[in-house]
Amino acid sequence: MCIFAGLLRQMTSWEGTLKIFCKIALILFLASFASAQRNFQTPPPYPPQLTTELKQLREAALASDYAWQQLAHLTNNIGPRPAGSPQASFAAQYVAGEMRKLGLEVKLEKVVVPHWVRGLEFAALDEFPGMAPGTTQKVLLTALGGSVATPAEGITAEVVVVNNFDELNALGRDKVAGKIVLFNAKFDKQLAAAGHGGPAYGQAVVYRGIGASTAARLGAVGALIRSVGGADYRLPHTGAMRYQPDAPRVPAAAVTAEDADMIASLTQQGRVRMHMVLTPQQLADVESYNMVADLKGTEHPEQIIIVSGHLDSWDLGTGAIDDGAGVVMAMQTVQLIKQLGLHPKRTIRVIAWMNEEFGNSGGIAYAAAHKDDAANHYAAIESDLGAGHPVGFRMTTSAANLPLLQPAGQVLQLIGAGMIQPTDDSETDIGPLLALGVPCFSPIQDDRFYFNYHHTAADTLDKVVPRELQENAAVMAVLAYTLANLPQNLERPAPRVAPAR
Amino acid sequence: MCIFAGLLRQMTSWEGTLKIFCKIALILFLASFASAQRNFQTPPPYPPQLTTELKQLREAALASDYAWQQLAHLTNNIGPRPAGSPQASFAAQYVAGEMRKLGLEVKLEKVVVPHWVRGLEFAALDEFPGMAPGTTQKVLLTALGGSVATPAEGITAEVVVVNNFDELNALGRDKVAGKIVLFNAKFDKQLAAAGHGGPAYGQAVVYRGIGASTAARLGAVGALIRSVGGADYRLPHTGAMRYQPDAPRVPAAAVTAEDADMIASLTQQGRVRMHMVLTPQQLADVESYNMVADLKGTEHPEQIIIVSGHLDSWDLGTGAIDDGAGVVMAMQTVQLIKQLGLHPKRTIRVIAWMNEEFGNSGGIAYAAAHKDDAANHYAAIESDLGAGHPVGFRMTTSAANLPLLQPAGQVLQLIGAGMIQPTDDSETDIGPLLALGVPCFSPIQDDRFYFNYHHTAADTLDKVVPRELQENAAVMAVLAYTLANLPQNLERPAPRVAPAR
Repeated sequence: MCIFAGLLRQMTSWEGTLKIFCKIALILFLASFASAQRNFQTPPPYPPQLTTELKQLREAALASDYAWQQLAHLTNNIGPRPAGSPQASFAAQYVAGEMRKLGLEVKLEKVVVPHWVRGLEFAALDEFPGMAPGTTQKVLLTALGGSVATPAEGITAEVVVVNNFDELNALGRDKVAGKIVLFNAKFDKQLAAAGHGGPAYGQAVVYRGIGASTAARLGAVGALIRSVGGADYRLPHTGAMRYQPDAPRVPAAAVTAEDADMIASLTQQGRVRMHMVLTPQQLADVESYNMVADLKGTEHPEQIIIVSGHLDSWDLGTGAIDDGAGVVMAMQTVQLIKQLGLHPKRTIRVIAWMNEEFGNSGGIAYAAAHKDDAANHYAAIESDLGAGHPVGFRMTTSAANLPLLQPAGQVLQLIGAGMIQPTDDSETDIGPLLALGVPCFSPIQDDRFYFNYHHTAADTLDKVVPRELQENAAVMAVLAYTLANLPQNLERPAPRVAPAR
Repeated sequence: MCIFAGLLRQMTSWEGTLKIFCKIALILFLASFASAQRNFQTPPPYPPQLTTELKQLREAALASDYAWQQLAHLTNNIGPRPAGSPQASFAAQYVAGEMRKLGLEVKLEKVVVPHWVRGLEFAALDEFPGMAPGTTQKVLLTALGGSVATPAEGITAEVVVVNNFDELNALGRDKVAGKIVLFNAKFDKQLAAAGHGGPAYGQAVVYRGIGASTAARLGAVGALIRSVGGADYRLPHTGAMRYQPDAPRVPAAAVTAEDADMIASLTQQGRVRMHMVLTPQQLADVESYNMVADLKGTEHPEQIIIVSGHLDSWDLGTGAIDDGAGVVMAMQTVQLIKQLGLHPKRTIRVIAWMNEEFGNSGGIAYAAAHKDDAANHYAAIESDLGAGHPVGFRMTTSAANLPLLQPAGQVLQLIGAGMIQPTDDSETDIGPLLALGVPCFSPIQDDRFYFNYHHTAADTLDKVVPRELQENAAVMAVLAYTLANLPQNLERPAPRVAPAR
């Protein structure tokens, strides 16, 4: 999930922008919700057969374990699927095979992806107030994706702790040069617990993206961030960082929230020195695939509704909530249509995206390859915020489209998923399509627990509740089938500049 | 915390005994609670001054951050304190210094402890159904305390999964020899969430203690257990195991609940092979200390009330809930008495026990050294179940003593800690004193979350809520001061055979 991260990466004045961004997001949310309520008054009826078919899809989704079994296979049998790994490409081939079993037309569209591999990770404080002579205090951390390695013997340096960029700048080069900087920005657990996980993530993740370069410009020899996540189980959360062109490249890692607290406490008492070894490697780029499978439409086969999630994951866990879940909802959508013998008028295209996490090369490559066909992309759906209970779906389209979708919302309201929420953004992989003016949609999930597990070793199959995965599959299937059969054309959002990735 | 583990280790027919044991525990609990209610009717009044002083202690405990600061020092500044480590002995000296600052008479009583050190830990499945060719699926695990090492290059063997000893025996030597056995007994999270963490722990921990030897008798080359704990954050829980004299010694480790589920799922689909490297070492025994500090009584200095917790911890976390918290409650007890200028009639003895986790040599050594003085040990208090909100205290004494303690319970009821619960057992370190007929006491904590963190890397300072630590210190201080000043003698429990450790 990178809604916020994607936008944030391109901003230069991070903190001010962030605050404004969060306020705007809240206002948009409230305004759009009010707007949705108003527009709900006079929905145009769907043809009775379409309504019947949507209800069939909903009920069939709630009765099926197809998505769950596919997710079990992706996570347990294939495992972590970081971009560039054999598992990621094998998973694309696996999904392709499953789609062929359903009779879909499948293409594996080439995507060049980076291939960063995690190495050893070890850190310990070897000097700190009150220590037992001759001992160390172990620090649990994990390298950030894209980090350079330390020398094989590691680096050893004093640690300075700052809560934000202002504090770093106030220290200045004199107090930063030669040190390891820990950015101790806390993930706002209360905000996340209140259902605003995205904004909480957006506030804290900025230090992951550009913290290392910002510290390195002042002479730091390494950068640490407090893990961006909500749980209290001493789990480091990885994620992508990127070096700025004008800054030295220093190794960067995420320490657990507990270790950040410990280091912060010790530095308040005196000098703290850390020894850190990270041995990741940036290998040569790898050719991988977006898995693209078409269930052809009967009346407008050239018009496309994308259903999707991203197949790549981080390497620590097995990528169940981020984002195996999104992929299997898309797979389930066409499986249900086939199972029920339904025939969408427009083409439904399953895409298992490659490399959301490490620069979105899959989404960018697809949009580049299909640019001339953008007008035929009627809509794109992606789920990439886990598989918590869905309350409805977001849409990046004109508000004029709202009434067209309200009957679909009514079908979903039976499972509590009837909310339709306009938004100004999209999930990461379909962002380049949004930039081309393609209406984008995503389920709205309960994400209160999502950031407890996000980018950690604990992102595993058991974090997905089977019933909630069924509900999400119902949302994607009902939404996709609605879009594939609407008599009208959707008003399209204005094309925009695609976010730099 | 080893209430149940201690008793269970000496049993031979584990499963049947366990069920009976849990039922008895429940009946005792209910009966004792009813009994406590009945006896609550006619408490004898305390001298008004004593009641006043108890209330002063309670209020002072709730206003003090002494225990918290001491716990921060033990966990952040000293760190993990496994038996035999430099940190453990250094911590004993540190606590001794703090006790001397308060004016107590301090002795460091020698205890010989084992010195087992964790080495490298790595495991991965390298053969399993549906795998991407040339890949592995990593398995997160941690060696059990006391385990032997694998060869340096590790062992590689097929994995068989059983849910209990019956299933293992049903497989027999033919299907177990040469394999790694995974005991997949689930910790009962619902039982723990309902406030019965101890029984839930007792049910599952038996496989940790004797699983390896039981499997090795059938020819297994390694043993794994599903971690004994309640959280869903892919955390392995370590803990002590012990080899039976008649069985080959095979390496033993705990995998996370998630990894146990994954392995179980894969073995249902086909052959699963694991490569495992564990390099722990059993070093020479080490001389360490029980820290013993006396605040002398004014009228009966020869009579002793022990307040205590155990100073050693496991090595993965920093030992905040297990059991730094118990130690600092004991430290806080005498600090408050000094701060308020109170003068207990009997001696209050702070003990920071060494080596609860690895055979209880501290508790055993103390009871052996002080055996002839057992009659002067008026009572012993230990806290070793974390620092969750206390609801009262347990007592291993005759029910005849209940009325004597009810006014103390009433003083504590203001903070919701007035329950007095007779029990038949004690915390581990004071078990050998109970065997000598010393009345034993412990706070009753809310342990619903305790086993989420128990014996994991996540047992860190932040898991203790400052206010709840204050409440616990209030319980220990009020209880200890009451016992030190009661006009009557307590009826003593019958001496019994000390549990073999």
